[in-house]
Amino acid sequence: MVRNVVITAGGTSEKIDEVRLISNFSSGRLGLAVAKCFLESKTANIGKIYYLCDRNTIVPDDERVEAVRVLGAQGLLDALENLLATKKIDAVIHAMAVSDYTVKQVTTIGAIKAGEEDRDKLTEEEKISSEIDDLVIVLKRTPKVIAEIKKLQKETILVGFKLLSNVSKEELIETGYKLLQKNDCDMVLANDLREITGERHIGYLISRNGDYIRLTTKKQIANEIVKNVEQLLV
Amino acid sequence: MVRNVVITAGGTSEKIDEVRLISNFSSGRLGLAVAKCFLESKTANIGKIYYLCDRNTIVPDDERVEAVRVLGAQGLLDALENLLATKKIDAVIHAMAVSDYTVKQVTTIGAIKAGEEDRDKLTEEEKISSEIDDLVIVLKRTPKVIAEIKKLQKETILVGFKLLSNVSKEELIETGYKLLQKNDCDMVLANDLREITGERHIGYLISRNGDYIRLTTKKQIANEIVKNVEQLLV
Repeated sequence: MVRNVVITAGGTSEKIDEVRLISNFSSGRLGLAVAKCFLESKTANIGKIYYLCDRNTIVPDDERVEAVRVLGAQGLLDALENLLATKKIDAVIHAMAVSDYTVKQVTTIGAIKAGEEDRDKLTEEEKISSEIDDLVIVLKRTPKVIAEIKKLQKETILVGFKLLSNVSKEELIETGYKLLQKNDCDMVLANDLREITGERHIGYLISRNGDYIRLTTKKQIANEIVKNVEQLLV
Repeated sequence: MVRNVVITAGGTSEKIDEVRLISNFSSGRLGLAVAKCFLESKTANIGKIYYLCDRNTIVPDDERVEAVRVLGAQGLLDALENLLATKKIDAVIHAMAVSDYTVKQVTTIGAIKAGEEDRDKLTEEEKISSEIDDLVIVLKRTPKVIAEIKKLQKETILVGFKLLSNVSKEELIETGYKLLQKNDCDMVLANDLREITGERHIGYLISRNGDYIRLTTKKQIANEIVKNVEQLLV
């Protein structure tokens, strides 16, 4: 049986104005490693990988991969909704580092203090002038993309990712497991920024029952995710 | 005589925290086109191109090109100061879309209104929590990199770039010419975001005497810049 998989990979970009954006340092290499692993697996028998990513993210070079370029958390959500509503997707590997915040408005400290925090510089100019001394970007939270996936397709296998920075192993596992429970994930990869340097990449793959396995490279993480997804697919 | 050229290309990234950054939509393709044109020119006789760019920018594949990865406007300035202080540079093509702003601090609307705008969320956490409702990024202006170049090496040829958005041709030329005069540029390429779509790229190359020529593709712009630099190098 041929399988369709969605992989979300790399960072997202939230527009500030026509020129500027908020993004993140995600390299997209973990998503790439998972895709490679699926494509090389005989057992997985991949028909198509829908590869959802930002404009600059590297996409695996394989005819079974269809790149879907998205802009921002909202763009990702729109693309996922469209895919999950129209196609049978066997698994969603949600590796993308989705921004928690998007831009609500661009204003100034002066305007906020004067109670005019709704005065939006962007309504005045498409590209914000470079001559303002107290410019601020007001943020608002993005929609929680991961929360929507199982609602859209109940039977799909969902792999979540949680990146924290400089926390204890216990906190990392606990936060990862909470993400799993809250969003009905089948497994969650929890990792700490501090433990990612080049190919070395410590990650804990947490299962539904709360057990976890410690992995030390992107390749190992990718292999373990694909192996576990395959077992659930049988 | 062998020539050394500095090209700055693509966008810059200003760190918000350990994960997030402010960047821009610059593709780096104009810098790439100029590099290619220099490398192919017999007249230019390139010894080395120092290619200053952000971590993700594509670098021309040629043994005469040395990539210098920089982070943010300050990182670019440091790298330029180092190069211009230690090496004879015949021309600087400053095509990089340098951010006008960097991050001063991350705080909340509540803190600003309470007169506590110096309360910095970043001193509390390395990666900002995703649970804050009124988060704001306070910006400050970056150093004007272009202003430093001729101060560091008076005899180098300096090509500046000015990107505006949705202005009249007259305003574009005027603003470009002001940039030229203020920073002792030998020429300035002025362009409008609205007039850049894929390969189509309208740009006005302005000379020291205020004359300008209208160009319509990245290749044409690159050719004209290299031709003009070569004439000045003779």
